[in-house]
Amino acid sequence: MSDLTPASPRGSAPFRPSTALLTDHYELTMLQATLDSGRAERRSIFEAFGRRLPAGRRYGVVAGTGRILEMLADFTFTSEELQFLESRKVVDSTTLDWLADFRFSGDIRGYAEGEVYFPGSPLLSVEATFAEAVVLETMILSALNYDSAVASAASRMSRVAGSRPCVDMGSRRTHEQSAVAAARATVVAGFTSTSNLEAGRRYGLTTVGTAAHSFTLIHDSEREAFEAQVRSLGSDTILLLDTYDVDEALTTAIEVAGTELGGVRLDSGDLGIQAAEVREKLDALGAINTRITVTSDLDEYAIAGLAAAPVDAYGVGTRVVTGSGAPTASLVYKLVAHSDDAGEWVSVQKKAAGKSSTGGMKEAARIIDGTIAVEEAIGIPRLELPDDLEARPLQVPLVTGGEIDHAYTGPEGVQRARERHAASMAELPRTAHRLQAGEPAIPTVFYSA
Amino acid sequence: MSDLTPASPRGSAPFRPSTALLTDHYELTMLQATLDSGRAERRSIFEAFGRRLPAGRRYGVVAGTGRILEMLADFTFTSEELQFLESRKVVDSTTLDWLADFRFSGDIRGYAEGEVYFPGSPLLSVEATFAEAVVLETMILSALNYDSAVASAASRMSRVAGSRPCVDMGSRRTHEQSAVAAARATVVAGFTSTSNLEAGRRYGLTTVGTAAHSFTLIHDSEREAFEAQVRSLGSDTILLLDTYDVDEALTTAIEVAGTELGGVRLDSGDLGIQAAEVREKLDALGAINTRITVTSDLDEYAIAGLAAAPVDAYGVGTRVVTGSGAPTASLVYKLVAHSDDAGEWVSVQKKAAGKSSTGGMKEAARIIDGTIAVEEAIGIPRLELPDDLEARPLQVPLVTGGEIDHAYTGPEGVQRARERHAASMAELPRTAHRLQAGEPAIPTVFYSA
Repeated sequence: MSDLTPASPRGSAPFRPSTALLTDHYELTMLQATLDSGRAERRSIFEAFGRRLPAGRRYGVVAGTGRILEMLADFTFTSEELQFLESRKVVDSTTLDWLADFRFSGDIRGYAEGEVYFPGSPLLSVEATFAEAVVLETMILSALNYDSAVASAASRMSRVAGSRPCVDMGSRRTHEQSAVAAARATVVAGFTSTSNLEAGRRYGLTTVGTAAHSFTLIHDSEREAFEAQVRSLGSDTILLLDTYDVDEALTTAIEVAGTELGGVRLDSGDLGIQAAEVREKLDALGAINTRITVTSDLDEYAIAGLAAAPVDAYGVGTRVVTGSGAPTASLVYKLVAHSDDAGEWVSVQKKAAGKSSTGGMKEAARIIDGTIAVEEAIGIPRLELPDDLEARPLQVPLVTGGEIDHAYTGPEGVQRARERHAASMAELPRTAHRLQAGEPAIPTVFYSA
Repeated sequence: MSDLTPASPRGSAPFRPSTALLTDHYELTMLQATLDSGRAERRSIFEAFGRRLPAGRRYGVVAGTGRILEMLADFTFTSEELQFLESRKVVDSTTLDWLADFRFSGDIRGYAEGEVYFPGSPLLSVEATFAEAVVLETMILSALNYDSAVASAASRMSRVAGSRPCVDMGSRRTHEQSAVAAARATVVAGFTSTSNLEAGRRYGLTTVGTAAHSFTLIHDSEREAFEAQVRSLGSDTILLLDTYDVDEALTTAIEVAGTELGGVRLDSGDLGIQAAEVREKLDALGAINTRITVTSDLDEYAIAGLAAAPVDAYGVGTRVVTGSGAPTASLVYKLVAHSDDAGEWVSVQKKAAGKSSTGGMKEAARIIDGTIAVEEAIGIPRLELPDDLEARPLQVPLVTGGEIDHAYTGPEGVQRARERHAASMAELPRTAHRLQAGEPAIPTVFYSA
């Protein structure tokens, strides 16, 4: 079985079980019914997009695209999966046979990971038979919805932190595998590193750590703990100050580590006031290069509140891995067009109240005025703009005839996405960066042929 | 490698990669520093608990315990993990040697999965050397925090739904592996089934599905779609009514499937009013046994609002997998006691502002007055109550000397947790079930020896 090959060049863990059951039951029963009705083979375009941004947000950040491509490579129904589906009578034998042969052979294009997006932006378009496109729905949405939620929150935090690094420390506050994806998404959106080791292994991210209160408490005194940490990890380490009394701890820290101490961490209390006191004392003691890291329920608002405090780095946990109030991006995956019996494309859309979508295949570009984005332009089916408008095309090919473009996967994909994000952020108007609730930073305009 | 053994009797997927890197960097550097300082071997008790419930909640629900035990079985540092740690210089060679030999050999006891909890409840207590207990921190918290957040939300929904089944359909709105854990947690907390196939395979849950709008749209007419679905899946299937016009769709549905149609689904609009109209028409057409399932951003409040509507089942998505406003349970894992050089237990706690914990090992019981819970009683280190108080002990052994009790893992564990949850819910006072924000349903009282 291909699952048993050793560590792949894309840096993932060595064992790669099938991803094909990370799927809703109805995807496979719909497959069965369309195999029966003859509609399974109709060429189809499904589109992932958001009807709106989370309340008050000015922009969203696309993330998870690379992970979708990685999971697509393992989206096969092996005997294990088929046996389960058969034993539970989820689908009939015709459908089982189809699934046994399934390898995605269609095309996927979409916004490059790290790109910013707005309501209606066609983040991912899957063009394949109905059967091939529908079975990917749940997996695509799971990855896009979670990762984009985290990246969208991380981007706001990273932006407001300015040149001060933000570090993901949220693994313990979300599902253990979400934690890996979250670490990845925060780095796409500008964080510098993560506490998560598996994310380090899988995506080549820089991993970092300080120490916990338990480390201080297991020693007979704070001094003994600091001595142990410095002796074992070097004076470049970060000592945690608030197990007992911050001021005493700081004196001890410099006595133990000297003025070359790498950093100190504050994890409670009024971080702004404490940081100022700690900075003053560090400087007075001559530890002018010792850095101050703060942690403790930080989010973009708390980070903004610390802008004037002498803080050197932010460790962010709960709020970033839960999307800072928007734990899912609420993206949907909709059939927007299919070929009819004559081979012509037909645009389709449902009419459900408050949930309508815009049918038809789409071409998207960001209109740039000088160096600033002014509009999300979406053409149906093609975007034809006047020559005097400068437009940056937004969709890139990700999978072509079933062939995955691995430039977007693994560690390389994360770096590429990080660069894309930085470039797209630089293009946004200033209003995009206001933390207050408001309208999307630029309007989305649809152009129908 | 033991990872290559076929499907285990506990029903998990066949390939089980090591879980040991689902861990924060600092757990391993703390290990290194304590191996160096000689404190690594100190007998320690770490405790997982919540300082408070999410704002306004009356109770929480413990979930993830079984998954922790499953992951513990695979928490080993194989050559793959060691190679990564070495190449990235995360820890020194002494620590790598220790990790290579690591198998958890301590004791874990805790609240049985499905149990309800309150502020300070000692949900999980790990007694082992400091080294063995500290390396499990991140994995334990990730699983407990996410799964308990979902179960706590699901319990409120399930309770307010009364005898009407709640079905988890949230897979697409959270990370693809969180989705599996979420499905499991919702069933622990009273949901009847899930759309998630992997959760069906791994935990023996019942999986269900209806159909999506794309299924209707890929056919040339709604009638053609309904005919295909009924022909392939039987008249017991559930037809989706709101792709175009609900009233027309209903007429078509009964013409196609007859009065034996299993069910219909409404996914938009004012669900209460529509359900009433649909019920009336179904009855008028003679389809008196056709059930109405509603979906569309349901949460406990929306379900409560539909109590008087003729709804037969609730499909819940986004809100349950994101904890209905509380996407993490915010549980922490703290060192509360360790042995000193003389072999005596010493209680420890940090003093950080607003984040203090209660040191010492703990014994917990729920005080019952007649059939109703009145207090969460926590003794430090032992609970000695007057004889006239009826008290139900809350902690059970989960791991003893490294041996995992598999009664709490796999499909069997889920069923056991579901029963535990139902029994504990029956014991709570009525105030526990108010949806409005308020205080914990019963007080937590600490008794020190």
